[in-house]
Amino acid sequence: MSLISTKAVAEHASASSCWIIVHGKVYDVTEFLPEHPGGSKIILKYAGKDATEAYDPIHPPDAITTHLPKEKHLGAVDPNTVVKVVKELTDEDRKHEALMAARPSIDEIINLHDFEAVAKAILPAKAWAYYSSASDDEITIRENRAAYQRIWFRPRILRDVSTVDWSTTILGQRSTLPVYISATALGKLGHPDGELNLTRAAGKHGVIQMIPTLASCSFDEIVDAAVPGQVQFLQLYVNRDREITKKYVQHAEKRGVKGLFITVDAPQLGRREKDMRMKFVDESGVAKVQEGQDGVKKNEGVARAISSFIDPSLSWKDIPWFKSITNMPIVLKGVATPEDALLAYDYGVQGIVLSNHGGRQLDTARSGIENLIEVVEALKTRGPWPNPKFEVFVDGGIRRASDVLKAIALGAKAVGVGRAFMYSFCAYGQEGVEKAFQIFRDELEMNMRLIGARSIDELVPQMVDASAIHSHVGLTPADNLYNTTCTYPTHSGVCIFLLI
Amino acid sequence: MSLISTKAVAEHASASSCWIIVHGKVYDVTEFLPEHPGGSKIILKYAGKDATEAYDPIHPPDAITTHLPKEKHLGAVDPNTVVKVVKELTDEDRKHEALMAARPSIDEIINLHDFEAVAKAILPAKAWAYYSSASDDEITIRENRAAYQRIWFRPRILRDVSTVDWSTTILGQRSTLPVYISATALGKLGHPDGELNLTRAAGKHGVIQMIPTLASCSFDEIVDAAVPGQVQFLQLYVNRDREITKKYVQHAEKRGVKGLFITVDAPQLGRREKDMRMKFVDESGVAKVQEGQDGVKKNEGVARAISSFIDPSLSWKDIPWFKSITNMPIVLKGVATPEDALLAYDYGVQGIVLSNHGGRQLDTARSGIENLIEVVEALKTRGPWPNPKFEVFVDGGIRRASDVLKAIALGAKAVGVGRAFMYSFCAYGQEGVEKAFQIFRDELEMNMRLIGARSIDELVPQMVDASAIHSHVGLTPADNLYNTTCTYPTHSGVCIFLLI
Amino acid sequence: MSLISTKAVAEHASASSCWIIVHGKVYDVTEFLPEHPGGSKIILKYAGKDATEAYDPIHPPDAITTHLPKEKHLGAVDPNTVVKVVKELTDEDRKHEALMAARPSIDEIINLHDFEAVAKAILPAKAWAYYSSASDDEITIRENRAAYQRIWFRPRILRDVSTVDWSTTILGQRSTLPVYISATALGKLGHPDGELNLTRAAGKHGVIQMIPTLASCSFDEIVDAAVPGQVQFLQLYVNRDREITKKYVQHAEKRGVKGLFITVDAPQLGRREKDMRMKFVDESGVAKVQEGQDGVKKNEGVARAISSFIDPSLSWKDIPWFKSITNMPIVLKGVATPEDALLAYDYGVQGIVLSNHGGRQLDTARSGIENLIEVVEALKTRGPWPNPKFEVFVDGGIRRASDVLKAIALGAKAVGVGRAFMYSFCAYGQEGVEKAFQIFRDELEMNMRLIGARSIDELVPQMVDASAIHSHVGLTPADNLYNTTCTYPTHSGVCIFLLI
Amino acid sequence: MSLISTKAVAEHASASSCWIIVHGKVYDVTEFLPEHPGGSKIILKYAGKDATEAYDPIHPPDAITTHLPKEKHLGAVDPNTVVKVVKELTDEDRKHEALMAARPSIDEIINLHDFEAVAKAILPAKAWAYYSSASDDEITIRENRAAYQRIWFRPRILRDVSTVDWSTTILGQRSTLPVYISATALGKLGHPDGELNLTRAAGKHGVIQMIPTLASCSFDEIVDAAVPGQVQFLQLYVNRDREITKKYVQHAEKRGVKGLFITVDAPQLGRREKDMRMKFVDESGVAKVQEGQDGVKKNEGVARAISSFIDPSLSWKDIPWFKSITNMPIVLKGVATPEDALLAYDYGVQGIVLSNHGGRQLDTARSGIENLIEVVEALKTRGPWPNPKFEVFVDGGIRRASDVLKAIALGAKAVGVGRAFMYSFCAYGQEGVEKAFQIFRDELEMNMRLIGARSIDELVPQMVDASAIHSHVGLTPADNLYNTTCTYPTHSGVCIFLLI
Repeated sequence: MSLISTKAVAEHASASSCWIIVHGKVYDVTEFLPEHPGGSKIILKYAGKDATEAYDPIHPPDAITTHLPKEKHLGAVDPNTVVKVVKELTDEDRKHEALMAARPSIDEIINLHDFEAVAKAILPAKAWAYYSSASDDEITIRENRAAYQRIWFRPRILRDVSTVDWSTTILGQRSTLPVYISATALGKLGHPDGELNLTRAAGKHGVIQMIPTLASCSFDEIVDAAVPGQVQFLQLYVNRDREITKKYVQHAEKRGVKGLFITVDAPQLGRREKDMRMKFVDESGVAKVQEGQDGVKKNEGVARAISSFIDPSLSWKDIPWFKSITNMPIVLKGVATPEDALLAYDYGVQGIVLSNHGGRQLDTARSGIENLIEVVEALKTRGPWPNPKFEVFVDGGIRRASDVLKAIALGAKAVGVGRAFMYSFCAYGQEGVEKAFQIFRDELEMNMRLIGARSIDELVPQMVDASAIHSHVGLTPADNLYNTTCTYPTHSGVCIFLLI
Repeated sequence: MSLISTKAVAEHASASSCWIIVHGKVYDVTEFLPEHPGGSKIILKYAGKDATEAYDPIHPPDAITTHLPKEKHLGAVDPNTVVKVVKELTDEDRKHEALMAARPSIDEIINLHDFEAVAKAILPAKAWAYYSSASDDEITIRENRAAYQRIWFRPRILRDVSTVDWSTTILGQRSTLPVYISATALGKLGHPDGELNLTRAAGKHGVIQMIPTLASCSFDEIVDAAVPGQVQFLQLYVNRDREITKKYVQHAEKRGVKGLFITVDAPQLGRREKDMRMKFVDESGVAKVQEGQDGVKKNEGVARAISSFIDPSLSWKDIPWFKSITNMPIVLKGVATPEDALLAYDYGVQGIVLSNHGGRQLDTARSGIENLIEVVEALKTRGPWPNPKFEVFVDGGIRRASDVLKAIALGAKAVGVGRAFMYSFCAYGQEGVEKAFQIFRDELEMNMRLIGARSIDELVPQMVDASAIHSHVGLTPADNLYNTTCTYPTHSGVCIFLLI
Repeated sequence: MSLISTKAVAEHASASSCWIIVHGKVYDVTEFLPEHPGGSKIILKYAGKDATEAYDPIHPPDAITTHLPKEKHLGAVDPNTVVKVVKELTDEDRKHEALMAARPSIDEIINLHDFEAVAKAILPAKAWAYYSSASDDEITIRENRAAYQRIWFRPRILRDVSTVDWSTTILGQRSTLPVYISATALGKLGHPDGELNLTRAAGKHGVIQMIPTLASCSFDEIVDAAVPGQVQFLQLYVNRDREITKKYVQHAEKRGVKGLFITVDAPQLGRREKDMRMKFVDESGVAKVQEGQDGVKKNEGVARAISSFIDPSLSWKDIPWFKSITNMPIVLKGVATPEDALLAYDYGVQGIVLSNHGGRQLDTARSGIENLIEVVEALKTRGPWPNPKFEVFVDGGIRRASDVLKAIALGAKAVGVGRAFMYSFCAYGQEGVEKAFQIFRDELEMNMRLIGARSIDELVPQMVDASAIHSHVGLTPADNLYNTTCTYPTHSGVCIFLLI
Repeated sequence: MSLISTKAVAEHASASSCWIIVHGKVYDVTEFLPEHPGGSKIILKYAGKDATEAYDPIHPPDAITTHLPKEKHLGAVDPNTVVKVVKELTDEDRKHEALMAARPSIDEIINLHDFEAVAKAILPAKAWAYYSSASDDEITIRENRAAYQRIWFRPRILRDVSTVDWSTTILGQRSTLPVYISATALGKLGHPDGELNLTRAAGKHGVIQMIPTLASCSFDEIVDAAVPGQVQFLQLYVNRDREITKKYVQHAEKRGVKGLFITVDAPQLGRREKDMRMKFVDESGVAKVQEGQDGVKKNEGVARAISSFIDPSLSWKDIPWFKSITNMPIVLKGVATPEDALLAYDYGVQGIVLSNHGGRQLDTARSGIENLIEVVEALKTRGPWPNPKFEVFVDGGIRRASDVLKAIALGAKAVGVGRAFMYSFCAYGQEGVEKAFQIFRDELEMNMRLIGARSIDELVPQMVDASAIHSHVGLTPADNLYNTTCTYPTHSGVCIFLLI
């Protein structure tokens, strides 16, 4: 296939004939324009030009080659025709640079919340919206956190806690933490190295990373970045075209991936309204008012733009097929009920993740930690517990080692942490992720000593009081009128007035 | 009857002889002045003049002909004597126009709350007060919303949800949504086309509209706006004069109305204080201070001004009479207890609406969704459930498809939505209502997939955790003193300080 | 006794010989100075002068004659020597006048909270502090209100509610309302006519007033202001000197008082810190800093200054004695437990008031309405209920007819309302109290119709859901850090930004 | 050992040879630099100089002699070579002086919260951070307070409460209050006299002080300040070197200490992030950004800097040894479960303190008062209760006499108060502590009268309703969107607007 000059590409710069360059390859996307989940307008902006920079952070690297028929892959750009442009810094770039320069020293990061606060401050609005958003009224995302605070400790004293050990195994693989890095999408929105920050830190510290289907970096880039012996799992969104899925899974197994986490709570990606609203803020920062009546697809945000390949017909009858195409242990990610936990067990998979997808799917779904209690009860009806052939994981809302220890005391084998690790690399790259591990270690050491558990095995249900976990009370709506009229602080106004 | 000149009308411009023109007809309202629920003052403002514009949005179109004795209907105005005035825009008109021009594009409306936020911003204060107000301390209106958030989902996974279907039947009529448009009064306060916005959108999308007794548009206008085959129900406030009610009901049946919803929770309309307070803000926006000692009726707001005809003696013994005057299915709207649900069943009506009138009647009444659970339990004692001869509906506080699905899972046949649809047309007319339907469809598709229910039938009680529904806790009153003194955020003040 | 000239009085203007004039009589208070509960300083300010104006609002009229030995009652002032001074308006007087002039029209008062808001705005700081304060952290006063909002209605429908009747009897006396005016102290702090505002309004509308021991007006003034047949009760603080109490009670009975309410929850008056802090704000509004080390009594506020006569030794063994000195029905005010309710019953009194003294005594005491449920259960063990020989009343936190109806449905014969009536006269005098009655009537009519109860008898426990009354949950303390970092409103910032 | 001149010392002013003067003694700390828990930098600031002033408030007086090998104790400074410097006031000193001058009169202090508000206002930021901080998200510290407000009183009436007596015995020692002063560290951060303020006030009023291991004053100073017969207890952090502990305990016993409270909830001191963040605010008040990558130890705050000697291997098997080295009664401080309470009982100690270390150790640990209920139940299985051989104490969050009475009613022998007493001396020295005692006495008298208990013995479980103590509900996360849109105060905006 001969090389194509940029001039030739530039001649196809309209809706009637639209070529674009991505990663040095030329594609004819004319017929694809109406199907593009993000709308045709955004593509046309790059018609006849190089679209790589806009394409990169929000598409899996092989998205275009997978979705576009072979005959539309026109060939490589002639590098001699490419004019190197000195990229000018935009105002947004400059703002980001200034924020990065002013970010706190990593020494000042004391807990995982700090990473989130810094990420919120430095990230571009779209990236923050995509990362932080959850579905509908964002109730479940907050419940995920709140649920841990309905569980209280019953610490034991006077045990010799000179040394405490929080290492464990996950699906038979050693892990230095009872925590794995859960899959989160589009890492490059937060940092140019994207998911590789996680891979490198994880390799250095013996932590297991779950590679996301929707990573910004390609699967192979991520696997290539691993050190010898580093354990990685794969998170899988199942494609409508099962052959694509089969190839993907078998490739992963061949590359040494040690566990397959099939996402089962996302037949369709949730409505993340914060993300969706971003579509209405254009470059100049002014809202587009009263324009365009037909743009149904406009409304969808990044999340939905990238997920149209996911198969909503996925069902239990697919499980035997998965078992037939891989020898990796299979874990279902997104189980929420004891009924489905038992089905998973009976279908012979190796584990489940009690998860609500970080609050990004079904709003007012219960938290994983709440479901854990019922699930463990149910699984005990299938034999002795813990069951070495079936592991239960929990994710969602974990920010403290104390959360980890609560989940483990209640029966989880380990927990997944997604957003918190992602936030940790936004401002600090790999070093941030390493610091996050260090925080977990510091807090685990502290808390295991204070609870009186010297190893993961010694974390028993009696160490927590989870009796309030199902207390979803909600308040009697306040009597605004009375409160306004009659509730006055009883504080010594005098003293405060004088001194402050 | 000969025509009357506007000059002749203008001669009767005082309390001792007061004529007014409404819709081209002249009326002598002198004797009616002291009886006018809104006070005589507002009528005298139009004495000897055309009052149509003030009359229209807050009176049912036939109010004046119904309430005024025939002999006071003086005849038609001589159109040749009417001077067409070019209506000058008031400041308020101009403000409203500016707000409408600046309203967000309908594409930016992502959920039903957005319509409410926009309506609040663009509506004149009186209209907003009338629409949004609820009774007393407005506790029940907020509880209506809060109750849904005490119900959590238990979603099922790995069912083939390629296609999901949320259509259903209501009283035997097909509906594309498990949602009907509930009756709300005085639609023209929000938009010049009033209830017709709902009719037109409903006709286009196969949704059922319940026509309110207190519509701004006349009953026949609303029925005339329907497309062939469009299903409409009628909401009925029962008149002290049963003949008026009988004529109204039979006329409705003749015009094709398919169901009669008799309001049973409003022997008297509630005290909606926000609405009442509007009476004290005069045109210049300044409160009237220290004036007038005897004006008991002043205090009543729009709601009570328009409702004096409602019969507080309505009782169970009237039910057989209703059954004798119509073949339409009869539904009691405003049931709140299992006791009354059973009575309704035993009296042979076809259904009930568990409702507290949108929080506008008895404050601290429980929510419909809370009552649903007890009511379904009670109705099971009357035979197999669901019972094809008796349907249970719920309204109040519904803003999300997830709310709809919770109600259906717990036994409701469908749900009523009032305010949310009304808000949807305030800024956007018919298009707003259609967008509201679209939002319901998008959310229903999403949520049914995520719950694992492919049709209305598959929504079962096990899919929700409603164990907290009766948890009306209310808080231990806060210790203001301690909170002021001792609760400090633990956040990294440093980092936030630097960056923001 | 010969008349004393003001000049003679003026010669005794020091701590070593201190005469004062009160109501035209001269008293030698030299020996009383160190005993004065309010401290000697405040008396010395008036040494040799007329102290009436300062004395009046915070002393019962006979306080000085009762406490000072006869030989210190020096005689009457010679009126010819009294120089009439034109009282100059102070800044505070002028501020109060301006506030009164700007107060809202009474027509704008729509509910009882409004009276409180206006009172708060217009009252001098000391009066507001005294009226509104409660003990310690003011938790019980807020719980009193909150408790009613943990009780929800179960309204019945389709009863003929054309006429509803809320009249009842209290201790055998007719009352047009199921509400009596409970005793509150020091009415003149709020309005120059003090308690007489209540008496006059009550007489006009057939409401029963409970006369407080600590009224600003004398007992006889209050009785004299009653119309023929008007029913009044007496609230009694029992004096350490039982003879004084006996005389007081027997005088009341002779004057026609129909019931004796003995306060049993105040062996010592509570620490009302808001009131106490007032002592530290001097006339110029500036706090006194670092002055005086020994002033234990300084710290006590109005409440404690006026209550030193109350007997902390009062006990059950006194009950027979009370029965021996009066034929009035005896009610114990301030009962809080079923144990004491049964003791009261067994000691043969005619009733009890479940009360925590408006939150002014024991902080974190439970509310009367919460205690009612247990108390009624206990009293049922003594025979059929309701028991015509023993009535149970509730007070504390009542602001709505709905509160009244809840208490009655749960077994109260009637309820007491104190502060709300007091606030009603602060800005509007007698007319305010009448308006408060009117508000109760309007709300009672409305709510009884909406509940489906046509008379007090029809208010049954099944009409309320009080299952949450004991839910004193208190919150899990919020995770400030997480909330600051991660809770973001999901609202359409865009739309709001544009419009507002 | 000959004297060393300051000039000689000054020659060792670098990291390669670093001498410092503390309390007139010269130490060679060169080798100790890298081990210093607070980092080497802070020491180097004083290299070659007198470090006493910086050393004093945050080290136990014998820290340096204990930690530094004997051969590094170089000898005494030659006093003739010491130049007396007139200490110049820093800006911070001047600010503190101004705040002290403006602090409210002690007469204005009405409750214990007031001391805390004043302390917060006048203390330097570091001192406030150290005193007020708690671990992680500071949830337990707030729960400590909240728990008391889930306990409500059931007061008894008509008991002769002329005299009430709140004196008691603690470990057989008379105490005028049912409250002891619990151990808190580093008193000199708050006041130059540090813990001696407590000692002197306690001696004067018959209150028992628990001497902290980490006091700013030395143990002997504190004992020397006691009056004859004054009772003191000792709080013990057990040293890795048991000989040091043994000497310390036996010395205490010899000096007359009457009880040994061994801290068992602190094998490692907690992460108090507010304290830790202080490290990042340098003298100029500007955060240090992006500096230093290796400073793990930087992150630790005062608390951890002073606690490295504590032995994490302490266990039940050490208890017999403690019994062998002392005849003082032994109490375990920091028990949290019935299991450990029974172990303590069975190991033969004399009591336990149910404590979570003021929320400074394990966050989301339950409160002492909540644990009390289960612990008393458990101890009843060991024989009659109360058990004269085994006393149970509670600390954490106590600010009111009502809190004290609740704990005693539920079975505590007495309660410990730490921070509140510490705050009381920050602004007022010994006098503040005496005022705190007075407040307790006033509130105890009041509340015992109002509850109907005349002595500690009469405080019985029936006087409290603790049924809600385990209600750790946590809220359903609020629906921010709905709340923003739809919750409007119902207040009369008009009236408030006019008046305020």
